Parts: sequence; structure tokens; C-alpha cells
Amino acid sequence: MTRSSSLPPPEPSRIDQLPTPALVLDLDRAERNIAAMAERARRWGVNLRPHIKTHKCVELGRLQRDAGASGITVSTLDEARVFAAAGFDDITWAFPVILSRIPECVALAELVTLRLVVDSDEAVDGLERSGARFPVLLKVDCGYHRAGVDPRSPAALGLARRLSESRELGFDGLLSHSGHAYACDSVTSIRRVAAEECEVMGELAERLRADGLVVPTVSIGSTPACRLAEAVPGATEIRPGNYVFFDRTQAVFGVCAPSEVAVSVVATVVSSRPDLGQCVVDAGALALSKDPGPPLAERPSMGEVFDDYASGALSPDLYVRSLSQEHGILSRALPVGTRVRILPNHSCLTVACFDELRVARGERLIDRWSIRRERD
Amino acid sequence: MTRSSSLPPPEPSRIDQLPTPALVLDLDRAERNIAAMAERARRWGVNLRPHIKTHKCVELGRLQRDAGASGITVSTLDEARVFAAAGFDDITWAFPVILSRIPECVALAELVTLRLVVDSDEAVDGLERSGARFPVLLKVDCGYHRAGVDPRSPAALGLARRLSESRELGFDGLLSHSGHAYACDSVTSIRRVAAEECEVMGELAERLRADGLVVPTVSIGSTPACRLAEAVPGATEIRPGNYVFFDRTQAVFGVCAPSEVAVSVVATVVSSRPDLGQCVVDAGALALSKDPGPPLAERPSMGEVFDDYASGALSPDLYVRSLSQEHGILSRALPVGTRVRILPNHSCLTVACFDELRVARGERLIDRWSIRRERD
Repeated sequence: MTRSSSLPPPEPSRIDQLPTPALVLDLDRAERNIAAMAERARRWGVNLRPHIKTHKCVELGRLQRDAGASGITVSTLDEARVFAAAGFDDITWAFPVILSRIPECVALAELVTLRLVVDSDEAVDGLERSGARFPVLLKVDCGYHRAGVDPRSPAALGLARRLSESRELGFDGLLSHSGHAYACDSVTSIRRVAAEECEVMGELAERLRADGLVVPTVSIGSTPACRLAEAVPGATEIRPGNYVFFDRTQAVFGVCAPSEVAVSVVATVVSSRPDLGQCVVDAGALALSKDPGPPLAERPSMGEVFDDYASGALSPDLYVRSLSQEHGILSRALPVGTRVRILPNHSCLTVACFDELRVARGERLIDRWSIRRERD
Repeated sequence: MTRSSSLPPPEPSRIDQLPTPALVLDLDRAERNIAAMAERARRWGVNLRPHIKTHKCVELGRLQRDAGASGITVSTLDEARVFAAAGFDDITWAFPVILSRIPECVALAELVTLRLVVDSDEAVDGLERSGARFPVLLKVDCGYHRAGVDPRSPAALGLARRLSESRELGFDGLLSHSGHAYACDSVTSIRRVAAEECEVMGELAERLRADGLVVPTVSIGSTPACRLAEAVPGATEIRPGNYVFFDRTQAVFGVCAPSEVAVSVVATVVSSRPDLGQCVVDAGALALSKDPGPPLAERPSMGEVFDDYASGALSPDLYVRSLSQEHGILSRALPVGTRVRILPNHSCLTVACFDELRVARGERLIDRWSIRRERD
């Protein structure tokens, strides 16, 4: 038996040398995506506070900051702690406060500016009891119907007033997420959702101001809305997240082209059955996630396969037909050893399957960046 | 501002004190599940080689070993390395060999017995070129139609013969996975799948033996088949994985009762909308996974809610209606701060969302065990 192979394998210098499955970041594309959104925010005269739940990667957060982002948005306190430790000092936790995690918020607020989001008296009660002085945003339901107060309800005004008058807390303004843009069936209807979000939020802000409240922030956004809107009247801040990578869902919606998607999963055929017209690759549910993609798509698929990555051309008949934990089934039989590059349905969930991004310029690998997917 | 809260919060001693979302292991249930499967293997006179991809937890692997497991099964080399480092020295990587990872296999095989699985000449070529002497199992398609050779094809005999005659490799026998048990619609049809798996594998083994080959191992199994089969004639080894926890999918199939499921996700209501008849909990796709559960279920649901955890009683009308990254939408409005305990659709994927299991005896927390979900 030869022992030479017990030496660590050399660091691969090209994508086609990577052990698979691997998550590859096309840095040129990510930089363009970051620059384009920063430019939109500048043109609109609003702050850009990118949602880093999409990448959970400190290096990408720094690129966003260098491009002009004023603070970041997170979805968990784990993300907040990682980015606080890396020097990000203005963080909005854009999730309704979890009562059992208020002590962790208090600890974090001693290190950074931690903006919190509420939509209930119970959450305000809990924050007031903590004794800490958090800036707090009121979460508003702008039509997505997930979290947030109905902007036309008495609760909206009541909670805003309560926050404004709180001796412990500071009312920082309004926050919404137009996630229902993902239920649209056209670019036109996404633009309408974006416009309605601005209207709803602007009207509520005006109503509060007419009532004597100070409303510093009106924070809105989703990637489809921020990418397709022509203006964001009334908003002071946008919080898109997915735009740094995009994915198949965004491409199906016409929000981006496949050639703009900055993450892909490189996989290898490990088993092939020409008699069944299919083969197995080494990217399953724990590499791609089980996100089914948008119902609007031409075909149900757990991921598409690039025919030509550089141009963004997708294969007409090769795609990920189904997934189990570590197996992906492709729709055609390819020889064992064939490598494919997969466009994921939902990059936020795909990225959360991996510990690192393999950073590439074209086909050349230039770095490895950690994905900080801790969940304590 | 009070600073007292900057002290680390005390370690919670009961489930109802846990910060949420949290993944709770009911150790009594897991121990019973482990003992019951070990007892079946003993009664059948076969080796039990549990698939640890379900838990990725060294402590649970030790409990399985202490109960009599002879070696373990893994789905990735990351899992293999973690368990090798923890002293598990007989590991089957039950996934068709990934050509680009053969150097990692060689390195690992210097530390432990690493059994590999192939179903193609390309994989045998790659292994022979490595110069290492692996025990190799031939993957057989017993009806699941994912990976494996058609047992009636000339390729089955050809590959087995090639492995037997290889100067570098050792032919260790046959391996199958009856994953199509998850497409069944009754306990009866699962039993039929289990019986067919044994028939197919037994027949092929006999054919190979008649042809002069030595077939040491006939390894089969899936949790539904192993749990419901009355016998496993012809098999020498079973490799169930999910049985240590079970989940909603297994309960829907009648493989277990909800009161036997050993993992649950504890979540808190963070936002409530009685006007919409729903509320939001802090367990989303990155706590439960986006596994849709079995189509056989009474209703589509991304997770069920226990009315009474101890008896396993599930709520008739409260369940997880939909998921986004960190949000779960429940089907009824509950007050903010309400805690729920969720039965996950697919425990393997749910567990892979967390870094640790909160280990409980009844309501009492007794330990924290790491989930080793590295993906290099």
C-alpha cells in the first residue's frame, strides 16, 4: 500500500479540481450585485442595510459596508454576535423579539447598537422589564401577512405611541418586509407590491407624525421589490438580502438573469442508470436545501444545471428532479465522474448548508470564506 | 441601565426555560428506540450498523454501540472523520464513491476500517488507481431506483466479479437501501418492500456464490423496513438510521407512534394575528427544514404541534402551515410568548439545522450534545 497519499491533498487552484459537493462564490458577480444595489440606494437617497442572513459571511458583509451600507440586518442573534465580534456596530435584528432571548439582547447591546423589532405589547413589556435602552422599530404588515401590525389597526398607532412614550425604550420608526413579492406572477405585479409597500408605510408614518410622534426610520424591502422598484418614496432605508447572490427563484421572477447568480453548487455524478434515464449526484438536500422553488417556474425542479456557466445558459432537459439527504437525482443519465454546476432554488437556504464559500474569479479559486451558520 | 444582565444567563434546568428555537432530545425515548432495534437485530441474527447521518452525534453513536451495534454507517466523509476521531473504527460510507474524494478515503483508511460502496466501473477504476486496499461493497438497486446496479443486469455480476478479482480491493459483499418504503401507502406494502429487498439481495448473493464468489456481507435496510419486517432472510446486516429518533413521516406511515419520536423543536410565538387566524413562531426552515413530509399525510404540514408531549397527542387544528427562513406560520393565533413543541416532518434534516441537542429526561435538561454537521 502506498503511503504517499497520506499527505494532505494540495489546495485546488481551479473549480474543476474541487472535491465535491462544493459551494462556489463567483466574486465578480457578487461584487457587481453589491455595487448595483448600493448605487440604487444612493440614487434614491436611502440607507442600505443589507440582510446578511443570505450569506452569513463576514467578508461579504465587509464588501457591502465598503460599498456604502449603513449597518446590517440579521435574522438571528447568532448572526448578530458573529458580526458584532467582527466589528459591525449597527445591527437590526429584523425578527419579532423572542422573549426568552432578551437577556442575550441586553448583553449584545452593551457592545453594539442593536435595533429590535416588535409588533406586540408582550414584546414591549419584556423589553421594558429588561431595563436596557434599545432602539425599537415597529413591525408593520405591508401585505405579506406574516408578522407585523395591521397598519390600519388601532394597535399600530397604540404600539407606536407606547414605544415613543416609553421611559426605557427609544422609538426608531417602522419596518416592513414585502415578502409577498415572491407570490407575484410578473415583474409588473412585483413593482406594484413595491409601490404599495411604500404607500402603506408612508401613510402610516405620516399618520404617526401628524399625531406628534417622531418617526426617524421607515425601513422597507425585499430583493425583488428593491431591484425592480423605480422609486421608494417615503422610505429612509432598504433591507434587501438575497441580491448579493440571487438564485433560481429570482431568475424565474425576472429579478435577475441566471448569469448574475453568484453562488452555485458544484457536484459530481456518482451513479448512473441509462436504463432509467437518470443519474445521481453528490448534492442532496443537505447541499441544496429542500426549497421547491417558485410555483411559477416552467417545471418543478430542485435546481437547474448550467449548460454554460459564463453565459448563464441553462440546460433545457437536465435538472435536479428530486433530492434525498445526500443524493440528488438528475433528469438524464450522465457518465460517472461528470461534474455539473447547479443553480440553486433558494440561495439563502443553500448557503446555510455549507461551512464555507469557495471564492472564485472565473474558474480560478482565490480564497475560502467561512459561512457562520451557528445555531446555539 | 442595569448591567446585571451582562452576566451569562444561568444554564436552564428545564425545557420550559430554554431559549428558543431549541432542539430537544428525549433521551428515554431514544434509549428505547435504540434498544428495540438492537433487539430485532439480535433476534434475526444479523449485524446492526446504524446510519449515523440521522443524528451526527458521537454520544448517540456510543449508545448504539453499547447496545450492540457492530460498526456504523455514514453518508459523508465529514461524518466518517468525526466518528473516526471519536474512536469508531469500522465505518461504511454508504454512498457511491465520489471520485474527487478518494484521496480523503485513503487518508481515513489509514486510521480505521473504511468500507466503500460502488456501482460503476469508473469508481472501481478510481479506487484501484489509489493503491489503497479498501473493502468494497457493491451497491444494488433493490427497487428504490436511486443508486445501485440492476440486480438482474450483467453489470451486477460483472462488477462483483471484478471486485473479487481485483488485486487492490477486497469484495465485501452487497448493499441496498429500501428507500422506496417511503413511497408506500400502508404497513402491508412496507412489509412487502422489506420482503422483496431480502429476496432480491438473497437471490443475487446466491447467484454470485454459485458463480464461485465469496459474498461476506448482505447489507440491507431502511427504518420502515427494519422496524416492520418480520424477518430478514438472506441478510447479514441491517443499516437503519432514522429509528433512533423517528419523526412525523414515520408516524404517518405507522412505523412508530408520535409518543416514540425522540426529537422535537421547542419554539415560541413571537407575533400573533387573531384577525388572520395565525401566528408566527421562531422555528423556520433553518430549524425544521423544508421537508414537506409524506404525501400520504392527512394534511400538508411542515410540522405538527404536540397537544400533550408525554402521551404523543397531536393538536387536531394547530400545525405549521408554512415556513420561511426563520419564521414558521402556525394555523391558529396563539398569544405572543406561548411555547409549542413541534413534531418535525423529517428528523434527519431537522437535526442537521442545529449545532446541539438539548438532552432531556422528561422535562428536566441533563446535558448538551454536539451535532457534528461539518461540511468541508
